[in-house]
Amino acid sequence: MSVQSDLGDLKARLREARDISSSAAVLYWDQSTYMPTGGAAGRGRQLAVLSRLAHESATDPEIGRLLDRLAPYAESLPSEHDDAALIRVARHDYERVTRVPAEYSERAAKHASATYAAWVEARPKNDFATMRPMLETTLDLSREYAGFFPGYEHIADPLVDDADEGMTVARIRPVFDELRAGLTPLVARIAAADQVDDGPVRKHFPQAQQSTFAEKVIRSIGFDYERGRLDSTAHPFMTRFGHGDTRITTRTNEDFLAEQLFSTIHEAGHALYEQGTRAEDDGLPLGGGTSAGVHESQSRLWENIVGRSLGFWSHWYSTLQEEFPEQLGNVELRDFYAAVNRVEPSLIRTDADEVTYNLHVMIRFDLELQLLEGELAVADLPEAWHARYQSDLGVRAPDDRDGVLQDVHWYAGSIGGAFQCYTLGNIIGAQLYEAALRELPDIPEQIARGDTSSLLEWMSTNVYRVGRRLTPDQLIQRVCGGPLDAQPLLRRLTAKFEDLYAL
Amino acid sequence: MSVQSDLGDLKARLREARDISSSAAVLYWDQSTYMPTGGAAGRGRQLAVLSRLAHESATDPEIGRLLDRLAPYAESLPSEHDDAALIRVARHDYERVTRVPAEYSERAAKHASATYAAWVEARPKNDFATMRPMLETTLDLSREYAGFFPGYEHIADPLVDDADEGMTVARIRPVFDELRAGLTPLVARIAAADQVDDGPVRKHFPQAQQSTFAEKVIRSIGFDYERGRLDSTAHPFMTRFGHGDTRITTRTNEDFLAEQLFSTIHEAGHALYEQGTRAEDDGLPLGGGTSAGVHESQSRLWENIVGRSLGFWSHWYSTLQEEFPEQLGNVELRDFYAAVNRVEPSLIRTDADEVTYNLHVMIRFDLELQLLEGELAVADLPEAWHARYQSDLGVRAPDDRDGVLQDVHWYAGSIGGAFQCYTLGNIIGAQLYEAALRELPDIPEQIARGDTSSLLEWMSTNVYRVGRRLTPDQLIQRVCGGPLDAQPLLRRLTAKFEDLYAL
Repeated sequence: MSVQSDLGDLKARLREARDISSSAAVLYWDQSTYMPTGGAAGRGRQLAVLSRLAHESATDPEIGRLLDRLAPYAESLPSEHDDAALIRVARHDYERVTRVPAEYSERAAKHASATYAAWVEARPKNDFATMRPMLETTLDLSREYAGFFPGYEHIADPLVDDADEGMTVARIRPVFDELRAGLTPLVARIAAADQVDDGPVRKHFPQAQQSTFAEKVIRSIGFDYERGRLDSTAHPFMTRFGHGDTRITTRTNEDFLAEQLFSTIHEAGHALYEQGTRAEDDGLPLGGGTSAGVHESQSRLWENIVGRSLGFWSHWYSTLQEEFPEQLGNVELRDFYAAVNRVEPSLIRTDADEVTYNLHVMIRFDLELQLLEGELAVADLPEAWHARYQSDLGVRAPDDRDGVLQDVHWYAGSIGGAFQCYTLGNIIGAQLYEAALRELPDIPEQIARGDTSSLLEWMSTNVYRVGRRLTPDQLIQRVCGGPLDAQPLLRRLTAKFEDLYAL
Repeated sequence: MSVQSDLGDLKARLREARDISSSAAVLYWDQSTYMPTGGAAGRGRQLAVLSRLAHESATDPEIGRLLDRLAPYAESLPSEHDDAALIRVARHDYERVTRVPAEYSERAAKHASATYAAWVEARPKNDFATMRPMLETTLDLSREYAGFFPGYEHIADPLVDDADEGMTVARIRPVFDELRAGLTPLVARIAAADQVDDGPVRKHFPQAQQSTFAEKVIRSIGFDYERGRLDSTAHPFMTRFGHGDTRITTRTNEDFLAEQLFSTIHEAGHALYEQGTRAEDDGLPLGGGTSAGVHESQSRLWENIVGRSLGFWSHWYSTLQEEFPEQLGNVELRDFYAAVNRVEPSLIRTDADEVTYNLHVMIRFDLELQLLEGELAVADLPEAWHARYQSDLGVRAPDDRDGVLQDVHWYAGSIGGAFQCYTLGNIIGAQLYEAALRELPDIPEQIARGDTSSLLEWMSTNVYRVGRRLTPDQLIQRVCGGPLDAQPLLRRLTAKFEDLYAL
């Protein structure tokens, strides 16, 4: 067999595995958006079968043989050659996935689907009791998963590495500590300052008009509706079925303008990444975000660095006022800007301000580790949640609905590996933005004119089109000229909130 | 291996094959309802892979071995025993599907997906030229398919049998001839009578209000929104993903009230059949409509026999008037009833009245046969279409959009076997309704009170819950006490339209 024939065969097999996973993703999307409640049982079965088939396809021993045969060719190439990158990434994925038995994947998918359906009912009813045994099974499944990767230092490491290749608990903790050490005094200085009023965004804003405005914004920053769509779900998410079909979802609170608006920009940020990958990588492992953390860097960058900046609103605010003349006609730009950036320890992660947000994430990360370590029982999780919110943020949810039931992650997947990416994303996003500004110092001025195209193009070239050709560490090193670093995020937050709170 | 263990294994394998097909059905539904245009290429690949996997699963030689081992058990049972019926139907399906190579199925699915996407663009542009080469490939694929079933009398027979088990061109033609012989004088008598005015339904009826009313109607006749949903597509259809998830679609013409209303009732009729199957049959071949023709008997029964009856509107008309006071406030019930039953040779099958409808169908059936026989070239199809409409209905479409491009069938599947079911459905529906009336003569009176529950229950017991336990012929014989018979349809249409047109 020639190298080219082997490579063609490898690509076809990788594409097929991806096409099966993408089919499952369509079924998940439908389950979250449009499926009637009666469909849950059948959907669980369908997803379990597709999950097993995707697993069989991705673990086909022929892929292993092709990778073995292609290894000398890959070694003969410069490491940045596309074929070398493809073979390296495919080898990485194959080695990880072949350790997980198909039977496990099917069982876990079935459980995740049933748990998600139960959570959709249980959350509004504040019913943790129903979720407890299901979550115990999820924890068992997560431990079982870690067991497929013996030799880890911390039981969460295999789960973390799945989301953020190369990261470990031992590596994340010091970076998070550095961030916390920088954030704590900033939160205290803000608490001591004159508070800002978020009254302007806590009026009644009808859903349809919110959607009209949010759609204008995401169209303007580059979300391509020919290759994507926006729907409503209980918990917003982004999903990619292919280079031509990346979908995002959002949710609306008619009494709080910031929820739908920034959720939509956030998910659009994820989608810009996926829509910005190379068409020729479609269906191949190179064509997609390099890790959950780098992905989150883009959603957080578009949501916060762009979407919550004064410059952005100096362009968009008049359009928003036209949509809501009664609610915002008499609100000054600066007061609106303050309202969407109000810092206050609160209950809901996805509503949290930029400064306290990472405290929410670190609570979850720590609780996940304790659950996996066996230091915390699922039965004690609701109280542990409340206790940590009390100690870290000084607030306590009146119930579990806004406590331990608030995020979908544990109820639709595994425990461990799902949360660190949010804070990694904030860190990396700030690093990437600083790097972009060094090359293109006019970006803030362009944003203030409603033009984000230079920023998008810079991200496309340096991040999106790279896909998985570089690992997160390689990408950060290459693009930012240094390792993962919490300082750019701390610098940015300090400057922004010193100005906003007149510290 | 025990019989029970073999039977359990067989059921699990049949369910898995069905779950893969149902997953593909979700992807088709999404493609027709919500998929952005950019998704077409990826979706084609995904459907091709799922189609191949479904085929592999359904043709797994282990199913053949299990069926062989279970044959003595099936023979030892009364033929109506559930296990005997399951083994018989599974054997029938297995023998048909194992003749079709996986490679063919994948190729055909990919072609169907690309053709559908092209048709969605080409139809509004009246662009048959783009569709021609694709349709030629479809014809080649259909001929190739027939070739997998050597020994047929007519090349269309294998395609017809796929849709309507036991039917052949030789058997259908005389029944259609008998129907045509009865319909022709009726059409002529109506043409010579005073015409009725459909002006009342050709006003402006906003989509949202049309939907509100149609949803009330289908809820009332028994469509279960907990186990289904209604969306919009270019061409209405029904699809089942499982016992708990049967979806229908409709389309709206704001200038013609009858289109959305009766399309919705029509598809709801299909859905009542699927929602009325037994929960324990979910995922098994027994749980579903017995043939395309029997399925259509239900959509046509609910659309026409119920939905276009004077009794039905004597209950529903006041509600419709409340929805559209300006448009219908001054229209008498009898005039509205006449308007939705106006007989006039026209261009569009799905808008056609009950009397001429079967003429539309028979044109398509004949053209399909000519294409498959090689008597007609695809290039000559648009003109052949116009010629047949001119000779059979006395009308000629101004373009191909309302001519040969009007129906999705040839552009999303195969040529042959797709159309005879509509007229079979009208014939069988009339037979079943006569049988129901013999047992429950109060049904028309109940319908006039807005109560269709007795009719639904009778159909559930005699048709829906039977699923595929009986073949179409067995079902008709059992329930109606005789063979397929065009006379009940002719009797019904004659009585209804003699009254309506005062013949």
